[in-house]
Parts: sequence; C-alpha cells; structure tokens
Amino acid sequence: MADRPLNVISICGSLRKGSYNRIVMNALPALAPEGMQIKEAPPISEFPLYNADIQNSTGFPTAVRTLADAIRSADGVIFNSPEYNFGIPAPLKNAIDWVSRLPNQPFAGKPVALQSASPGPVGGARVQYDLRRSMVFLDALTLNRPEIFIGNCAQRLDDKTGKITDEQTSGLIKQQLAAFAKFIVAHG
Amino acid sequence: MADRPLNVISICGSLRKGSYNRIVMNALPALAPEGMQIKEAPPISEFPLYNADIQNSTGFPTAVRTLADAIRSADGVIFNSPEYNFGIPAPLKNAIDWVSRLPNQPFAGKPVALQSASPGPVGGARVQYDLRRSMVFLDALTLNRPEIFIGNCAQRLDDKTGKITDEQTSGLIKQQLAAFAKFIVAHG
Amino acid sequence: MADRPLNVISICGSLRKGSYNRIVMNALPALAPEGMQIKEAPPISEFPLYNADIQNSTGFPTAVRTLADAIRSADGVIFNSPEYNFGIPAPLKNAIDWVSRLPNQPFAGKPVALQSASPGPVGGARVQYDLRRSMVFLDALTLNRPEIFIGNCAQRLDDKTGKITDEQTSGLIKQQLAAFAKFIVAHG
Amino acid sequence: MADRPLNVISICGSLRKGSYNRIVMNALPALAPEGMQIKEAPPISEFPLYNADIQNSTGFPTAVRTLADAIRSADGVIFNSPEYNFGIPAPLKNAIDWVSRLPNQPFAGKPVALQSASPGPVGGARVQYDLRRSMVFLDALTLNRPEIFIGNCAQRLDDKTGKITDEQTSGLIKQQLAAFAKFIVAHG
Repeated sequence: MADRPLNVISICGSLRKGSYNRIVMNALPALAPEGMQIKEAPPISEFPLYNADIQNSTGFPTAVRTLADAIRSADGVIFNSPEYNFGIPAPLKNAIDWVSRLPNQPFAGKPVALQSASPGPVGGARVQYDLRRSMVFLDALTLNRPEIFIGNCAQRLDDKTGKITDEQTSGLIKQQLAAFAKFIVAHG
Repeated sequence: MADRPLNVISICGSLRKGSYNRIVMNALPALAPEGMQIKEAPPISEFPLYNADIQNSTGFPTAVRTLADAIRSADGVIFNSPEYNFGIPAPLKNAIDWVSRLPNQPFAGKPVALQSASPGPVGGARVQYDLRRSMVFLDALTLNRPEIFIGNCAQRLDDKTGKITDEQTSGLIKQQLAAFAKFIVAHG
Repeated sequence: MADRPLNVISICGSLRKGSYNRIVMNALPALAPEGMQIKEAPPISEFPLYNADIQNSTGFPTAVRTLADAIRSADGVIFNSPEYNFGIPAPLKNAIDWVSRLPNQPFAGKPVALQSASPGPVGGARVQYDLRRSMVFLDALTLNRPEIFIGNCAQRLDDKTGKITDEQTSGLIKQQLAAFAKFIVAHG
Repeated sequence: MADRPLNVISICGSLRKGSYNRIVMNALPALAPEGMQIKEAPPISEFPLYNADIQNSTGFPTAVRTLADAIRSADGVIFNSPEYNFGIPAPLKNAIDWVSRLPNQPFAGKPVALQSASPGPVGGARVQYDLRRSMVFLDALTLNRPEIFIGNCAQRLDDKTGKITDEQTSGLIKQQLAAFAKFIVAHG
C-alpha cells in the first residue's frame, strides 16, 4: 500500500486505568494489518477543563499542543471510547474541544475510526454518532464501516489479564483496522 | 401555583467569564415568572476531569457533592449551554458525568429546561438533543417547548453591558420560563 | 390506579406481516399490567406518502384521521419500531408526518413509550432517539426508562409461532409497561 | 479536474410542488461550477411505502430501480431536504429505505452532499445528521463542509418566481458545490 508504515494513534476516552476501552486500545498494535503501526496518543488526563479564558491568558497548555502535534503527524486517529450518560465521555470531549481551537486545526482532513466497548448490550451505539458529528464540524474523514460496538464487554474482555478473550471481537477489530488502512491510503 | 416559590438553578456550560450563555443565564432571575426564583448553580469549573479511579480512591470531590445537593434540592434545573464542536461543552458534560455517578442520582425525576446561544445562525440546535439524550439516561423530565436557540447571538446580546438587547429573545425566554413553571408544577 | 382501564394503542413501524416488531406488538396485551389495555392502532399501511399538496387539495385521507382520532382518545401510544438504515422506518415516519399536520395535533401531551427489536446486536438503539426528537417537536411525553432494545431478536422471538421465547425479554417488556402505566397516571 | 463533466443528481425530500427545497434544487444547475452538471433525480413520489412483503412478492417497483440506476451512474448525489418533525421527511426516507435493499446497493461509496431550507431560524440543522447516519450505514461518502442550512427561507427564496433572492445563500451554495466537485474528484 504505502511505501512507509501507516502511523496511527489511539485515544482512550476513559481515564480509568482498568478501563475496558483501554484493554481494547492496548490490543490494537497486535491486531493491526501489516504496514500499520498503532501507538497510544499522548495523554489527555492532564488537560484543564476547556476554558477560553485560559486559552486567551496563558495560551494553550503544553499537553494540548503535544496531542495536537501527534494528531497532525499521524496518518489516522482511533477513538476508543466508552459511552457516559449516552454521550461522549467528558475527558475525550475536553481533548477534542481543546485541540479544535488551535490554528492549523489537527483533525482537518484526518482519517478517524471509532471503537466502543460497554458493559451493557448496546455497546456504545449512541456515543459514536456524537463523535461523528463533532468530526463533521472539524472536517475529519470518519470511516463508515465496519462499526465496532463491543456490547456485554465483561464477557469479551478480561480485566484481570487485560486481554480480549472473544475471537469474534478480535476478528471484527482486525477487519476494521484493515478497512481503515485502505481508507487512509484512499482518502487520507 | 405552588405555596412556596419554585427554586430553580441554572448551570452555564461555558467557563468563559464573558460567555454569551452566561449573559443569558444572568438575565434569567429578572425574566422568571412570579413564584419562580432562579439562582446560579454552584460552580463546575473546579471539577477534575471525570475519572472513576479518583472516585474509587479519594471519593467524590466536594464540589461535585455540592452541585449534586443543589440539584437535589432544586425544583428544576436550566442548562445554559453553548455548542462546542457540534456537541456538549466538555465542562458541562464533565459536571453531568460526575454527579451521575453519585448514589441518589440527582437528575432522577428532575425537571430540566435547555437554552443555547451561539454566534452562528443555528443557535445551538445540535447540542440540545445530546443533552436531552443524557437526561433520558438519568431519568430527568426535560421540557419540550418552547425551545430556545439564540442564533447570531452577538446581535442579540451585548457582551459589554452583559444585557440581552433583543426583545424577541427576552420574550421567548419569558415564555419558556413560564412554561417551565407550569411543567414543574404538573410533573416535578 | 385509575378508575377505568388505561387505553393504550401500539403502532408497528414495519409493514411486513412477519415482522419481529409485530411479534413484540402482538405480545403486549398479555404482558400489560392490570388496568392497562393495549390494542393495535388503526393501520398506517394505506397512507399516501406525505405531500402537502394532497393535504391542501383533497384534505387529510380518512386513514390519517382515523389514526389521529385513535391517538387522541388513547391514554398512551407505544411505537414498536425496527431501525431502517439507522433511522425511523419510512412507514412510521410517514404516519407521524401526516397526523402531525392535523389541527388539534394528536401527540400533544400524549404519553409515548418505545420498543425496538432488530436482528443485529444493537437492537435499535439508534432509531429511538430520532423518534424521541420528533416527539419533542410534537410535545409528547416520552417515557425515559426502561428502554427496550431487543437485539439479536431472531434468538429471542420465534417468527414461526409468533411468540417471544426469551423470558428476559418478556420480563423487561412487563417492567416497561408497568412503568408506562405509572407514567401515564402521573403525567398523562 | 476530470476529463468529462461530473454528473450529479439531486433528490428533493418534499413532494410539494411549491416546496422551498425544490426552489433550491432548481437553482443548482446554474450555481454548479464548470465541469459539474446537476439534474433532478427520477421521481420518488410514486414509490409505495416500503414493505418487505412487496419486495418479496412482486419485486422492486420499477421506479425504485430507476432511481437506483440513476444513483449508481451519478458521480454524486445531493439531498435537498426539509425537516419534518425534526427529522427526515417520510418520502425521502422511503426512497432511501427502498433503494438500500437492492443488491449492488447504490449509495455504497457514493459522494453525497446535503442542503436544507426551512421557514424557521434553524434551517434544518437537525435533519442532516439523521441523513448522515443513514449514509454511514449505506457506506456513502458525505461531504462535511460547508453545511447549508437556509433558515428563515421565506425571506431568502421567492416562492412566486421560484428564485433564490438572497445572494449570501446563492454564494454559499456555490461554495458547497465547488467543494463537492473537489470532494468527488478526490474521494469518489
């Protein structure tokens, strides 16, 4: 496909260390197709709550600039996000709200893929369309399919070993990552 | 209506001191119908980013408990929220995500009304349905109508004097607050 | 609760005779709590596609008026709806679009509950928020919880016998109908 | 750009002859950039309400196949859609629901752009995200920006002459069509 490996970063929407979505994120490098490298994005946990007064007085925090640079230099971004109160988790929305204000807005034209795990049966099918809508505003290119909603995730992910235990889930993620690689090459 | 004044609190989704949505929020007490008192809710600006590990290690921050108590003892809650990246501003979502985890979840059965101002023509017509969806999860009772989308808000709100300068806007807010008072009495 | 039985009608969003959502709808009368009667609403299959020119030239079709009358005289309405292309099935949206134009709009103030079945795992978790948004416009009172998303429905509903075969599903429906009865009494 | 003109078709979501969205649609050919031809799609008004039993007994109606063929052979599709009850108008959803069931599903990989006009101030900002979500399911490529929400449309469109009277509106449509041409060349 490309003449160098595709460089993809993943952002976990949950700050909880044992997060199911973090388990999925940690599994991505091993599930990526040949020619795609996936690394965790710089941390979002130290961002202050978005406040334009901070932006205007002391400028963008270093952590915000660091994430934005990582997004800009990536070939694609994956959001591994739970659903909080049927919507985008505040820490993830906060990261998006901060970096979106930077000049040379980093999501513009950037390929994006979405993955959600949740303990209930629905698997995050509500949050992803909110993320897609924010990405419309930011002019990202969001992969349509396959969608990944890992419902009843406690049965598919082992939070003791930190592994995906369900082969169907691993297989679906592999499929999405392969589709994402093609998508990046075609549209990125 | 009721034999005591209705006690309503308002939460501004923007932390910016000069926020247009704060201008609207500040105007509410004077626009409320007789028998309704509207006060600003305790601040959300000092909440840490939601993290279940914080919740599990050091417990709920005091500011979170303070807001939750204010919501519980209010007859109704108004969200004055801008739209960030076509969605809920991170500081507001963060406040909702924190208080939603408390036992005796404070939005359960609580009457809620929504108001948005934004510089563009659409006036926040995207964010409110995300808030409504979170309120479905939290089993709040969200007022349907009239909806308040203050588009092109720089022409309707004066950020030097901090006043609403457009009578149609004030009138619509009055209508909504009157409808909210009836809604609280009927359903709250 | 009330001094007469609550009279609830159900509208199936699919016109297919063997529809899984119809199986759920047909099961409702037996799952209703004491004091609630549930009947199928008058048919929506013969409505023409909504066209304001028809409305203005020949008036509202008889079938539209019949449905609207049934909604007006009901204590509550249940939508049994699949998800078509991640949204409201056209026949159901068409019924809503027609009756919404009538004077004395029938959904105003009407208690509404939502149920979805779908063959995939998500169970219709996308369509219901679109229906909720239309009901905001029409000023209906939509039940928050429990939500009913019957995912992998071919394993829970038998399309040969037309029965619900999964007790968890029947139990959840019973819970929702009981909650809906209380909701109607409190808010209807 | 391309070595032949781009062939784009537009589908109006309203069946009303004097529809504001039809006025916008009719203006498109004159606003298209050089190298893009825009024609009205084959009519959707004669489609029966979607019913899988019709599909299974008598097959796809001729009008459905005709629209699907037109979509397949187009370089891009524009939806000119009002918002009915805060959602997709039934006639447009019906057209999508029918053609989506065909083998060789016609929206797969198809560039799509969205335009809405409405009498209220919001201009259709609710309906377009529902259309985007259906297009995610159908794997279309939907243009992000600029979005076109023609609010207060009676002041911008003349329903006697059938013309766009507001130059800002024409200008925005020109911008979107130019962006759509580039999008088709880059991604289609």
